[in-house]
Amino acid sequence: MKPIELDLLLELQLAPGITARVVTADSMTVAHVHLQKGAILAEHKHINEQVVNVIEGELELTVNGEPHRLTPGKVMVLPGNVPHSGRAITDVRIIDVFHPVREDFRQTSFAGYKD
Amino acid sequence: MKPIELDLLLELQLAPGITARVVTADSMTVAHVHLQKGAILAEHKHINEQVVNVIEGELELTVNGEPHRLTPGKVMVLPGNVPHSGRAITDVRIIDVFHPVREDFRQTSFAGYKD
Repeated sequence: MKPIELDLLLELQLAPGITARVVTADSMTVAHVHLQKGAILAEHKHINEQVVNVIEGELELTVNGEPHRLTPGKVMVLPGNVPHSGRAITDVRIIDVFHPVREDFRQTSFAGYKD
Repeated sequence: MKPIELDLLLELQLAPGITARVVTADSMTVAHVHLQKGAILAEHKHINEQVVNVIEGELELTVNGEPHRLTPGKVMVLPGNVPHSGRAITDVRIIDVFHPVREDFRQTSFAGYKD
């Protein structure tokens, strides 16, 4: 058992200006995500429960059509299958955690969220 | 669905100098943990898989008797039931995520990890 060095992981491009380094554990996926200021994550949903933890910056997270401003110290829990989208007000770093594992994030060929 | 403000949550005292604010989702527990320099988390184990994400500082995490130095950008995945302990080399902030939910962390009366 060794620590995983995020810098050595392949970087997933989730959308223009949005990249992630993803740790796939046995039961959870942990995504260290960077969003450039102005970057937009199109509305999407997935079966996985998600917890969004903002580490740096300010993120507008729209959930079921309702916008929320997330900054460090605010955490959003998204049940599975809830439509959500994001917009980076500033450069943003977040840690997203998912259960069950995001099978699509295991693939290095993730095509990104599309409008 | 609203963001959770960590500052409004009750702070759990995990051990002397180690506090956590804990978000219990449906399938996961997310603990925002602060360790004061020098603080020690005694060896313990739990059924829950755990992923340790260091946000700030330097943590010595001993897993199965083997010490590892964790700094931002290093992530440790701990399978369930693996004995582990921690020592804060500096002040440290980490985000620990667990599946299944840490039932003991639901309680505001968590008595702390003991030697």
